[in-house]
Amino acid sequence: MSILIKNCLVGNSRKDIYVEGKTISEISSQISVEADQKIDGKRLAALPSFANAHTHSAMTLFRGYADDMQLMPWLEQKIWPNEARLTEEMVYQGSRLACLEMIKSGTTFFNDMYWHFKGTFKAVKEMGIRSSVNGVFIDLFDPKKAEEQKKESKALFDEFHNSHERIQFSLGPHAIYTVSEESLLWIKEFSEKNDLQVHIHVSETEQEVKDCVKKNGLRPVEYLDKIGFLSERVVAAHCVWLNEKEAKIMAKHDAVIAHNPIANMKLAVGGVFPYSLYKKHGVRMALGTDGTASNNNLSMFDTMKTAALLQKFHQNDPTVLPASECFDLATRSGYACFGLDAGITEGKVADFMLVNTSDPVLSPSHNMVSDMVYAAHAGCVDTVICNGSVLMKNRQVSNEAEIVEEASAAAHELLSS
Amino acid sequence: MSILIKNCLVGNSRKDIYVEGKTISEISSQISVEADQKIDGKRLAALPSFANAHTHSAMTLFRGYADDMQLMPWLEQKIWPNEARLTEEMVYQGSRLACLEMIKSGTTFFNDMYWHFKGTFKAVKEMGIRSSVNGVFIDLFDPKKAEEQKKESKALFDEFHNSHERIQFSLGPHAIYTVSEESLLWIKEFSEKNDLQVHIHVSETEQEVKDCVKKNGLRPVEYLDKIGFLSERVVAAHCVWLNEKEAKIMAKHDAVIAHNPIANMKLAVGGVFPYSLYKKHGVRMALGTDGTASNNNLSMFDTMKTAALLQKFHQNDPTVLPASECFDLATRSGYACFGLDAGITEGKVADFMLVNTSDPVLSPSHNMVSDMVYAAHAGCVDTVICNGSVLMKNRQVSNEAEIVEEASAAAHELLSS
Repeated sequence: MSILIKNCLVGNSRKDIYVEGKTISEISSQISVEADQKIDGKRLAALPSFANAHTHSAMTLFRGYADDMQLMPWLEQKIWPNEARLTEEMVYQGSRLACLEMIKSGTTFFNDMYWHFKGTFKAVKEMGIRSSVNGVFIDLFDPKKAEEQKKESKALFDEFHNSHERIQFSLGPHAIYTVSEESLLWIKEFSEKNDLQVHIHVSETEQEVKDCVKKNGLRPVEYLDKIGFLSERVVAAHCVWLNEKEAKIMAKHDAVIAHNPIANMKLAVGGVFPYSLYKKHGVRMALGTDGTASNNNLSMFDTMKTAALLQKFHQNDPTVLPASECFDLATRSGYACFGLDAGITEGKVADFMLVNTSDPVLSPSHNMVSDMVYAAHAGCVDTVICNGSVLMKNRQVSNEAEIVEEASAAAHELLSS
Repeated sequence: MSILIKNCLVGNSRKDIYVEGKTISEISSQISVEADQKIDGKRLAALPSFANAHTHSAMTLFRGYADDMQLMPWLEQKIWPNEARLTEEMVYQGSRLACLEMIKSGTTFFNDMYWHFKGTFKAVKEMGIRSSVNGVFIDLFDPKKAEEQKKESKALFDEFHNSHERIQFSLGPHAIYTVSEESLLWIKEFSEKNDLQVHIHVSETEQEVKDCVKKNGLRPVEYLDKIGFLSERVVAAHCVWLNEKEAKIMAKHDAVIAHNPIANMKLAVGGVFPYSLYKKHGVRMALGTDGTASNNNLSMFDTMKTAALLQKFHQNDPTVLPASECFDLATRSGYACFGLDAGITEGKVADFMLVNTSDPVLSPSHNMVSDMVYAAHAGCVDTVICNGSVLMKNRQVSNEAEIVEEASAAAHELLSS
């Protein structure tokens, strides 16, 4: 398979891009080769596609089902009882809709934690996108449950690790308030032995910090450090409530923090992600959407804009988190955090998007990166390529109507019963 | 001219909508009439289109030109010197691009303050949208300048008042720190005599409040009240820094407040729009985008979502400004503030949009209003009707490529010279 994109904008100049197999093999001013697919890039600009560092993809099933509620009633009345009734098929349908939505908004990688691993794995495999898929690990401090969860993790690892080139198998211990210390240590060991990433929620709410201090005499990151859980394999979602000592600990271990500004604001977690503190200490960071029950979309455009606005507003300084840094968090930094060798460069894997430069919202085009962060929306993305395959062209994705209809049917089956 | 939309979603049921002339003449389950235009509504939902309560439309020319800067250097180095070199033709080009962008994001009315009134007027007239267009009135406390501005306002009034059914002529005194008391009083009198709205910036920054207290011994709204400026004709943009006494004053006069959450956050005005205070006192409110130099788009979708997120975050309460209230601010409340008799109801003027319900981001469609506020983007809007005319169908607007190209050329001419 090969793709030749003629005359599209790459940075500030017009170039041809030649994709051979799964790789960008050449970018230059004039490429004359035969290709299986040819794309006229006259009204298009090539840009890195997005890495979504934290989501629960199948929660598309819950989009708009319950909003504007206090956190605990929302979880206890609306989310948890319905999640308990999810089937693998429903998760497959929800994740397939999520993959479609991500492709249509320029995202080619997502880091996913949810129930019914196999449903999400199947959806990602079919949809052509990349993912780090982890099953949720929750033992609620029950040793019997812990053994079941370890067994399930091992079984999933045996079946799925290294089974697909686009899908990383990873571990998903939910949080320190739902997973026992013994299980966290087992996960740590298992991940080291098998070279796996570990995705966990950390310090999303102040209550979590208070409870941890009460129970362990330590704040969450101090506690995770003390038990030896932290490493460069860890992706910690949220980290809204870390102090400077904890920021230094995260930096020391080269752990990754996934920031989800929209969910943090929508659920009113109170605090503000301390971006400048993490930047000062060189903590690795990426951006995520969180699930659609608390966002309610998977658009990295919305996420970038909200991240930048929130920091400027909170720090009372419009120069904080400028567009270029924000775009990096959603692309290059995200790739680095998940070991992806992508970017619009020869030799990199061919994961990128082509945006429609004639969209009014991207005009007059003084600064493409600013336009991406502050002006663009999902509808500006024309073409998405992942692993050398065209997943969307002229905003058309295969089977779109069927995916939407089947996911909607699954959602209504789940939530009306 | 007549339009028949068959079988589209209106609320929770499928209906036909018949538009005759400029009015929605019938909404019912089965309409069998001949119509000049027929639209298959199978995959569409009819929703009120947006009223953008505060913008400077021609500033599309500056989109992405200068971001992430402190307010004063941004104004002094990037905006003001270039605004001084604007021509009427450039403003026409910038406003035409803005109208195109607004149509493509479901907005059919905007309240605009900018230089070169005639350029914007011409753009609105051509593009088929509605607007309240006001020229900026700035005298910088110079009596000679004040006389010139009054003369210009009178001349514009004579030429343009009641000259076009879709365009309201209104007055645009910039702010209390750029317009003398004598001129504010002249504007107040002229607006009463001629039944005009008055659009002014109020309390955007804390500095404005401090300066006003220092100069007048009163906060801005107290000062405007004291000199007799306030009335139901006044649309005050921003009002970030009002206290409870000032909120009561605004309510007493039935004045309108236009909230611009994105620009407030992007420019880091420090404070937070006191939504709940205004709601408590029954102040009339609407939502605006502000200009694209400080946003950087004209999408009311982005504005609704950011407004809701900001309130929830700031008040540490996810129940504040729920989706239904937020959607109302952007539609029904906006219409009421600008005297528009629109809405999806028989007898109302035919200003509305049809959104694509099969867009993945609007699925599984548990709650259309939530989906509009939290999930949708401009690309979900399929069709826009204003004053009984179809301005966009299948996302196509007449002359789109030409509008984008000419505006881009004007912007680059302005900013590269």
